This record gives sequence, structure tokens and C-alpha cells, in this order.
Amino acid sequence: MLKLSKMDVVGPYLPQTLQPGERGEAFAPSNIALCKYWGKRDTGLNLPINASLSVSLAHLGSKTTITPATGAEDQVCLNGDLLAADSRFATKVVDFVDLFRGDLNQPLRIETHNNIPTAAGLASSASGFAALMLALDDFYQLKLEPPVLSAFARMGSGSASRSVFEGFVEWQMGHRDDGMDSHAFQLSARWPGLRIGLVKVATGEKKVDSRAGMQRTVESAHLYQSWPLQAAADLEKLHQAILAQDFALLGETAEQNALSMHATMIASWPPLLYWQPDSVAAMHKVWQLRAEGLALYFTMDAGPNLKLLFEAEDQAAIEQQFPDLEVVNPFPAG
Amino acid sequence: MLKLSKMDVVGPYLPQTLQPGERGEAFAPSNIALCKYWGKRDTGLNLPINASLSVSLAHLGSKTTITPATGAEDQVCLNGDLLAADSRFATKVVDFVDLFRGDLNQPLRIETHNNIPTAAGLASSASGFAALMLALDDFYQLKLEPPVLSAFARMGSGSASRSVFEGFVEWQMGHRDDGMDSHAFQLSARWPGLRIGLVKVATGEKKVDSRAGMQRTVESAHLYQSWPLQAAADLEKLHQAILAQDFALLGETAEQNALSMHATMIASWPPLLYWQPDSVAAMHKVWQLRAEGLALYFTMDAGPNLKLLFEAEDQAAIEQQFPDLEVVNPFPAG
Repeated sequence: MLKLSKMDVVGPYLPQTLQPGERGEAFAPSNIALCKYWGKRDTGLNLPINASLSVSLAHLGSKTTITPATGAEDQVCLNGDLLAADSRFATKVVDFVDLFRGDLNQPLRIETHNNIPTAAGLASSASGFAALMLALDDFYQLKLEPPVLSAFARMGSGSASRSVFEGFVEWQMGHRDDGMDSHAFQLSARWPGLRIGLVKVATGEKKVDSRAGMQRTVESAHLYQSWPLQAAADLEKLHQAILAQDFALLGETAEQNALSMHATMIASWPPLLYWQPDSVAAMHKVWQLRAEGLALYFTMDAGPNLKLLFEAEDQAAIEQQFPDLEVVNPFPAG
Repeated sequence: MLKLSKMDVVGPYLPQTLQPGERGEAFAPSNIALCKYWGKRDTGLNLPINASLSVSLAHLGSKTTITPATGAEDQVCLNGDLLAADSRFATKVVDFVDLFRGDLNQPLRIETHNNIPTAAGLASSASGFAALMLALDDFYQLKLEPPVLSAFARMGSGSASRSVFEGFVEWQMGHRDDGMDSHAFQLSARWPGLRIGLVKVATGEKKVDSRAGMQRTVESAHLYQSWPLQAAADLEKLHQAILAQDFALLGETAEQNALSMHATMIASWPPLLYWQPDSVAAMHKVWQLRAEGLALYFTMDAGPNLKLLFEAEDQAAIEQQFPDLEVVNPFPAG
């Protein structure tokens, strides 16, 4: 198979002459996957081995502003700080911007603000690349269609494909070599009573990032072979749960899906365990509360934090058990 | 397939007339599986889905004595205490004894002593049923061959098939309906420098025993589908490692195998997590020490405890890191 570069993929969608504006700006929400993205069939374009489904976190996410730089160099700012040009974040951002800048050579100032609680273990790359893509579309007046914006954001960070949308979002895996059918779309269903609680588990920087983690899993975990079938089955169950507003089915499916993803990491070599002792204590606490009758479930990404899933009617009871909980309503009115 | 009962299986191996002696006595060691037994193809006869390989723990295990009872009822004693006839342990022991007692109706006193440190999470059922089988063979003067003794012990508790032997022991899965080819055998290789360290992780009684745990895994974990292939590959690697006395290969294989088994539990529904916060802390500690250059690995059974694997030359360094460690030499001289 001919491997396509990101530039090969983007090129056909750009106008012959770019028309940069004075300012591009966009916000994109974080998202929590209920059926996880774990494993790539193409590491260059971030094409996944399985479809995934998430819920976006409303007001929590990244806001990105693009303006012409005052000097001769690109300037990348994160939460108000100008970053070194050779920092990992700045390099990734500039590489992504280069896909769209073409021959213009116009230096840009790219400012990103994340309003995500740092200790909550929400990946900022999903909302960050989604906001960057939307801001680029705005700045260069590309007027790309949502599926194209989603597919392009995916090339920055896989799960960014989902952060282009609000509410329930499905990322179809796609089959094309250029990946243009591997984009997300928004589900029409809403679930106003759904709540997500972010449990803070103190931790340092991750030793193995998700990109490296999923690669290690695909290459070394026998058990990973069963993951795509699991994910496909879970996706079906989540469709059912959302359609019927069946919270137990949603919670069970999301929790088993997350634990199965972690199971594939645990079965890798070297073993990949993102859990800390506090993670395990929180899991046992959730199971204990559930045994006592509370409709409480959790999901976890490639990190030590739990994200609780519950319904509005149980919020007070759950906040009593987890005093530091940050609760998000993914479907705010209006 | 015709389901055979344990009695159907044992019958043909018993003499027409039993000759009970005055006293039967036997010791059987605990064993630590380096490639785990996890999942049954026949729950009645304890026939496994995969072959497994263990190392026996020399002097740590169970000693069982059988004598005629003084009264009209069976008496089952554990570590010096007479148990209630309807207790779980006594019932299992008497059910097993009944397979061999035939028409004799002779009440027996069965005394078992375990010298296994309770907090170390060593299953006593393996050594217990192996010792019971060997003591029955002695008491009734059955003179059964070792493979038969192993296959019969397996019907009491799967891993008891391995505790009939010392040193490295392989339990071949077998394919016959009566399970008589599903027995263990001793490997000739010895490894005098190998050490096993028992890490104590405080815990109460397990909420889900291994029997129920493996059944839940087989029935509900998608990821379990990949387990038999993983186990088969690990068994080959362990053969290689033992043949070449390649400690890194032994340690890596045993650790990945144990973690993969736990991964299948974690991916079950409801989730089955035997780990406590202290288990995870101990795992991270092992990985940290390994990153610093120590040849230290671990394995875990269906419980929260770690069993460390290392070589004699590193024992002092490892005892410094784990002050409560109980160290076992599985290949004592003589």
C-alpha cells in the first residue's frame, strides 16, 4: 500500500491561493470516550483499528487564536506563556500549521488556552488540535465541511477528530488509504440528565504517552487481538443505551470498555500500568457504592484518573462521597 | 459429549476390595505457576483450557494424616482445629474422600496442617488436595502411578495436579473426556539459584474465589479469547528459559503471563480486580528497581499478593527493599 503523507491528504482541499485573515479563533471541547480509541492501522495519519464514541465536555476544552506574528518567527503560546520553538508542543503545533500555510511563509502567533483542570487527567491534545484546526479554517477562510475538519484534526491527534463536535460523537474508523472517511460525526441524541465527574488522582507526568502506549500494546499484547471485536460490540451497546436512555447499559458498557483497554496495556510488555494506588482505591470505592445501590460507573483514559458517570439525580450523593469531584454537564440547556 | 462424573473416572482405578491401613500420611508442596491455569473446558472434572507450568515451594505446603475415626462420623481438622461437618472445607474434603472410600463406610479422621504464611496469598487448596490424594493412596494402599495421582488430585482442585510433584512441574491440558491425560509431570531441570519471595499484602477474605473468578472471565471477557494462545506461547518460552537458565526470559514470561491473566479478569463483567492499592504500589516498586538494573520480576495469582522472582545473588539487595519478604529456595540441596 502506498503510504500517504499528511500533506498529500490536505493538499487537494486547499484553495489555489490562500486568503489569510487578520485573526482566526475557535473553541473545541474536551471529550471522554465511552468506547475508546486504542490502536492504529496507520501511525502516520492516526487511522484507528476501531471506531470509538465519546461525549464532549461542553465548556471544558481549548480555545485557540491565530494572528500574524509581529516578528519573523512563529510564536506558540500555551496558557499565556510563550513556548521555546523547539519544545515538543510548539513543534507539533507548527508542523500542523505547516500543512495549511503552503507557500505563504507567513509567520503566525498561535495562542492556546486550556480551561481543563490539570489534575483531572483530561488529555488536552484532543481539544487542542480540534481548536487549532477550527482556528486555521477560520484564519485562512477555508470553509471546510465538518467531516473534513474532523479528519484533518485527527491527523494532529486521533481523538481530536471527536472534539470538533459537541454532545455524543462517533468516530467511524473508515477504510480509505487517505483516511478521509475516518472522521467523526455528531449523534443527534442528547441526554440532559447525564453527568461526568472528574476524580483527581495526583500524579506526575506520564512516563509513556498514549501514542507510545497504544503502539506498545498493539505490538506486544496477545490480548489486544480480541480488542477490535470488543470495541465493535461495545459500540453497538452504546448505540442501544443512548437510544433507550438506558443508563445502566451505558455505564456498564463504558466501564467494561475502559477496563478492557487498560487490560490490553497491562498485558503488554513491558507492562503498561497507568494506575496508581489511589486509582485502585477509587475503583473499589465505586464498586462498593454500586453494590450499595448507587447507579455509578467510571471510565478511564491512558492515565491514573477516573471519570465517573452518573445521572443528575444522584449528583448530591456522589459529591458527598468524592468531595473534590468536578462535575460536568455535557448537555447544558440552550 | 457424555459428561463423566468424578466417580466414573476414579472407579476403574480402585481395587475390588479396599485394604485400609492404620494410618496414611503425606506432604505436598505449594506451587507457584509461571504460566497460569485460567479457565476450564470441563468444570466438573477441572479440565483446563490451557497447559500450565509451576515451580513447587519445597518445604512450604500441606501435610495430611488419615486415620480411622474414633466415633461414627468423619472428623476433618485444619491446623489443629476440628471443623464443623457442614463447613465448606470439611464438605470438600469428605466429598473427595468419598470418591475412594467406596462401600467401606469407614469413618475417617483427616488432619491437615498448612505451614504456609497466611498473609502471603498462597492458595492452600493446591497443596491440600495433593496431600490428601497422596495420603489416601497411602491409607488405602492404592499404589497409583504419579500421573494418576496427579489427575485425581486435579479433580479436587485444578492446581493440585501440580503439587503432587517437586521442582518445575508442567500440567498438560489433555484432550480425553475422562481427563486422565490431563495431569502434571515433573521436569528434570533444576535451578538451584532461583528464589521466590512472598510479599505480604494485607487483605481480608477474597470476595470471589478463583473457581468463580475464572468462570466469570471465560463467560464475560472478550479478551479471554486470546488467552489460550498467549499461554501456549508463554509455555514455550518458559521451556526455553529453563533449558538455557535464562533468568530474564523466565522472569519476563512469568510476569507478562500473570499480568495477562489479571488482564482477562479486569476485562470481565462485573470487573474482577484482585489488586489492592498496596499491590499496585508493590508493582511500581518492582518496575522501578528493575529500571535501576535489578533482575527482579513478579507473578501474581488470583489475589492481591506479589510473588517475586529473582536469583540468589540478588537476595540481600531485594530483602533490603522488601523487609517483610519470606524467601523460598525451591531447589534445596539434597
